[in-house]
Amino acid sequence: METDFRALSRGPGTLSARQRAGDRYADVGRLLITCPDRPGIVAAVSSFLFAYGANITESQQYSTDPFGGTFFLRVEFHLDALADRFDDLLEGFAQLADRFSMRWKMTKAADLKRVAIMVSKADHALQEILWRAHWGELRADIVMVISNHRDAEQAAAGWGIPFRHIPVSRENASEAEAAQLALLTGKTDLVILARYMRILSPHFLSAYTEPIINIHHSFLPAFAGADPYRQADNRGVKLIGATAHYVTPELDAGPIIEQDIVRVDHRCSVDQLRQLGRHVERAVLARAVSWHLADRLIVHQNKTIVFT
Amino acid sequence: METDFRALSRGPGTLSARQRAGDRYADVGRLLITCPDRPGIVAAVSSFLFAYGANITESQQYSTDPFGGTFFLRVEFHLDALADRFDDLLEGFAQLADRFSMRWKMTKAADLKRVAIMVSKADHALQEILWRAHWGELRADIVMVISNHRDAEQAAAGWGIPFRHIPVSRENASEAEAAQLALLTGKTDLVILARYMRILSPHFLSAYTEPIINIHHSFLPAFAGADPYRQADNRGVKLIGATAHYVTPELDAGPIIEQDIVRVDHRCSVDQLRQLGRHVERAVLARAVSWHLADRLIVHQNKTIVFT
Amino acid sequence: METDFRALSRGPGTLSARQRAGDRYADVGRLLITCPDRPGIVAAVSSFLFAYGANITESQQYSTDPFGGTFFLRVEFHLDALADRFDDLLEGFAQLADRFSMRWKMTKAADLKRVAIMVSKADHALQEILWRAHWGELRADIVMVISNHRDAEQAAAGWGIPFRHIPVSRENASEAEAAQLALLTGKTDLVILARYMRILSPHFLSAYTEPIINIHHSFLPAFAGADPYRQADNRGVKLIGATAHYVTPELDAGPIIEQDIVRVDHRCSVDQLRQLGRHVERAVLARAVSWHLADRLIVHQNKTIVFT
Amino acid sequence: METDFRALSRGPGTLSARQRAGDRYADVGRLLITCPDRPGIVAAVSSFLFAYGANITESQQYSTDPFGGTFFLRVEFHLDALADRFDDLLEGFAQLADRFSMRWKMTKAADLKRVAIMVSKADHALQEILWRAHWGELRADIVMVISNHRDAEQAAAGWGIPFRHIPVSRENASEAEAAQLALLTGKTDLVILARYMRILSPHFLSAYTEPIINIHHSFLPAFAGADPYRQADNRGVKLIGATAHYVTPELDAGPIIEQDIVRVDHRCSVDQLRQLGRHVERAVLARAVSWHLADRLIVHQNKTIVFT
Repeated sequence: METDFRALSRGPGTLSARQRAGDRYADVGRLLITCPDRPGIVAAVSSFLFAYGANITESQQYSTDPFGGTFFLRVEFHLDALADRFDDLLEGFAQLADRFSMRWKMTKAADLKRVAIMVSKADHALQEILWRAHWGELRADIVMVISNHRDAEQAAAGWGIPFRHIPVSRENASEAEAAQLALLTGKTDLVILARYMRILSPHFLSAYTEPIINIHHSFLPAFAGADPYRQADNRGVKLIGATAHYVTPELDAGPIIEQDIVRVDHRCSVDQLRQLGRHVERAVLARAVSWHLADRLIVHQNKTIVFT
Repeated sequence: METDFRALSRGPGTLSARQRAGDRYADVGRLLITCPDRPGIVAAVSSFLFAYGANITESQQYSTDPFGGTFFLRVEFHLDALADRFDDLLEGFAQLADRFSMRWKMTKAADLKRVAIMVSKADHALQEILWRAHWGELRADIVMVISNHRDAEQAAAGWGIPFRHIPVSRENASEAEAAQLALLTGKTDLVILARYMRILSPHFLSAYTEPIINIHHSFLPAFAGADPYRQADNRGVKLIGATAHYVTPELDAGPIIEQDIVRVDHRCSVDQLRQLGRHVERAVLARAVSWHLADRLIVHQNKTIVFT
Repeated sequence: METDFRALSRGPGTLSARQRAGDRYADVGRLLITCPDRPGIVAAVSSFLFAYGANITESQQYSTDPFGGTFFLRVEFHLDALADRFDDLLEGFAQLADRFSMRWKMTKAADLKRVAIMVSKADHALQEILWRAHWGELRADIVMVISNHRDAEQAAAGWGIPFRHIPVSRENASEAEAAQLALLTGKTDLVILARYMRILSPHFLSAYTEPIINIHHSFLPAFAGADPYRQADNRGVKLIGATAHYVTPELDAGPIIEQDIVRVDHRCSVDQLRQLGRHVERAVLARAVSWHLADRLIVHQNKTIVFT
Repeated sequence: METDFRALSRGPGTLSARQRAGDRYADVGRLLITCPDRPGIVAAVSSFLFAYGANITESQQYSTDPFGGTFFLRVEFHLDALADRFDDLLEGFAQLADRFSMRWKMTKAADLKRVAIMVSKADHALQEILWRAHWGELRADIVMVISNHRDAEQAAAGWGIPFRHIPVSRENASEAEAAQLALLTGKTDLVILARYMRILSPHFLSAYTEPIINIHHSFLPAFAGADPYRQADNRGVKLIGATAHYVTPELDAGPIIEQDIVRVDHRCSVDQLRQLGRHVERAVLARAVSWHLADRLIVHQNKTIVFT
């Protein structure tokens, strides 16, 4: 739990008049940049924002190599009447971005991402997500829970989240995916696989173009694939782990966002490893999701830059 | 989360015929002993159990000093038809106990402790307890939630637990405690203060004779008393903690059962400390409660022996 | 050990031609700033550095409040021929600093800080510092070890560090401090109290004007003062800790730089707490010192901003 | 560092007259047992020891399955004049052991194990072992350091340990191993591979019949084989680890004794992973060695039972 502090939904400590009046995330903008490193990027970006009257409230950067490498920047800023001026800001920044060959994204913190959660039987990861959303730690618009079982129906209902039951079998796999895609496409900005125990097909992954975050119940790359707790028991490891990663077509091989472990000992049966692992899984997934929701993640060459 | 592995609800890895047929905790007995240390205790206890045909499945001991100190022992054993033979066992053991001047307790794992949870507004610790009970990690009969507010009513209802609303003000404090005692006395074996923000009076503490476990939101003895997160912020600590302890008349000074911490940094506001602390509080409380429920705790001179 | 990653002696991942030829810290400058927050600070600083041709390789900022609070900034940059142009840079920056009412400091990473280590009998913290210096993890010019005992003499000698034995008793306390000050004043930039068991007098603390870092063997503010492990044993805590802090006249009350803990249980005697605590002490002190040496620490109102 | 508390060199908290007079480990015996589980084992062992007048000061047990599984027991006991009565005790216990089909071992805590440390260039793991031995945390008779390089010579000399330089090349590999075996066979009870970077041949492993503990610089089974930190960097993991295990002919596949991890982030270069990993490696190895030295480890089917 050591690292939960990096998953804080940090907003400004104190508030502008407008924020005090309503949403503390009003007027907060975020900028994520990837570009070739060279002198002058920070100066250009900060001068651009200053020219608009924006106040930079958070800024982090990383370079794979100051001499010819790739540069990454995340800036959070406050700008009065951001919503009204956002298009203007986008247009202006596009020119600067062009000059530096940037891949970039600018978002308004007030715009909640629409999230679907896919789950099978075990509901611990789902509950944790819903719980932290309820507590205000995860800022998202959770629009539905999709499951191939009915076990999690009550949990979703308890939080007032629409539950979609789409049974999946070997026979109906492609129809099921079509039904899932019909629910998700254009209506969600993120899918969370909160212990969804079916492998999504390459077709699904190319049809759904928004990010998908999965929680794998081992410390990857150890114990990829099926039943990692049994694999862990067989090997006699003294720690078990969990890994949250973006989903890519190669199974359990996507960019790792977050990992953590819990100590076990010789007395733990496979069932007990599962019980213990549950707590790491939910914490790790919640952290990864919180970072994604706050635009703190950049993927670069199958790795993640995590600006916390 | 490092130490969650010590909170496993360990039952026997494999099962007897009877256990396979029904409850895996059937026929499991537990024995807790405190007595002056001297040679022969383990031999006497294990021979006693062997004479009854019991199989010792778990055993832990501790001595403050093998030469004149105090000896503590926890034994878990399997005995066919334990329920039928329990009175017989108690009677037999009483004689042995007498010989060694033991304080002791023998319980049947199948007998669930009746638990009441008291809570104020924040529901995270309550939810965690209910959740782990639902998952089978906490084996208890949770008989009611008592609160001085209505905030947690829905959470209790969601798990089907009776909710008792007893408002408490400066004026009605003693009537409120009388109402609480009427609900608790003789009907519960444990009270959990899951972020109950009123101080229980000395009268209450002497009237209610079963154990009470509290979660304090700091790393005691640092920041006892009110608003520990503000105290932590004032001092500029780099870690914040939580402490589960048995309640005694002296505020926040009872025997500590479990503690844990989470890293914070200069960026954390008091509100963010509260948000982070929440996760440590619920984990620490859940571990402490799990140990109590499994008869893994012995109190000795304001300290706890924790046999995990 | 979780947080050791924040104590990395990070230099640039790859190197300029000059760095490749010699010192990888050549041409690396560091800038620490504290000033009233207002829009435009980052733009001004980054534009200033860009105008000199500097490349910002690391940048971190924090504000107590974007609306009227205090702003903190640490920038690490690369500038060809930094040493030759340093005075020029200082002069130029002084004007900018004036405009924003900054307290600030600019350093060359290649300039090693001169460090004295004060120690009493236990040598674990001393050894750890010398060891990490040997491994290149602590970049410092360790100029002497001062001790009131002879126990650490061999350890110092083993690493070729001059050892100064200055016995201290109640009678000779002020002479001893005078001797210490004669060795330290003007010849050191930092004093590390690596388990130095005498309290430095207010006179010493006002006479020695450079920073002093102490390691206290408890999780402050718990167990300030003498024999914290005995205090911890008395209270029956389940974790013990260590705290590195800047020394101020009030005992154990200076700004906390770093803290960490280790789990203990009922079986630990006071001696065993000492044995365990040793490992946390040395790790915590080493991290705190590494951050100080890399100009990663800013003190503000008895708290530290830690830019790792 | 969380788990260092399990590596305490626990001796009795207080001492018998004989212990007070000299060695606190005098008169302390240890018994390790593996046998088919069945009722009555603890009763038989404890009654046996009681009959000799021994006082059991520590006892731990584990069963893979109380119904037909394998039972493991570790008992530490105090018996006056243990050395004089040890042969007698062995003889007596052999009969009991026979009855229960036990594999067993009885040792005197006062008998130090003779240890050789093999190391290549990096000296951090070696230094940690020598250091903890110096502090009394590792109770061993360290008889020599063997290295294929000269880098660690001074470190060994600093602690007065004989240093044997045996260069190893592809050409002289078998002569080198013969020289190593000549030094080790019959003169050591344990070999520690403290970052020894050559693979020991099957011939060596069958010729040297005492246990060998290796520290591997990854969280096994992830990143077995060469250059695990580079492998970790390639995969973009967020934690790196270390694994101490008994050496078997299959590379990096022997029974795992202990593991731990440290958090890393996207900023860490491979060199920085090495720097960070160093600290986990030395801590993990030291814990594993301390348990072996205190007879706290039992190997069963390529896993370890760790009685801490």
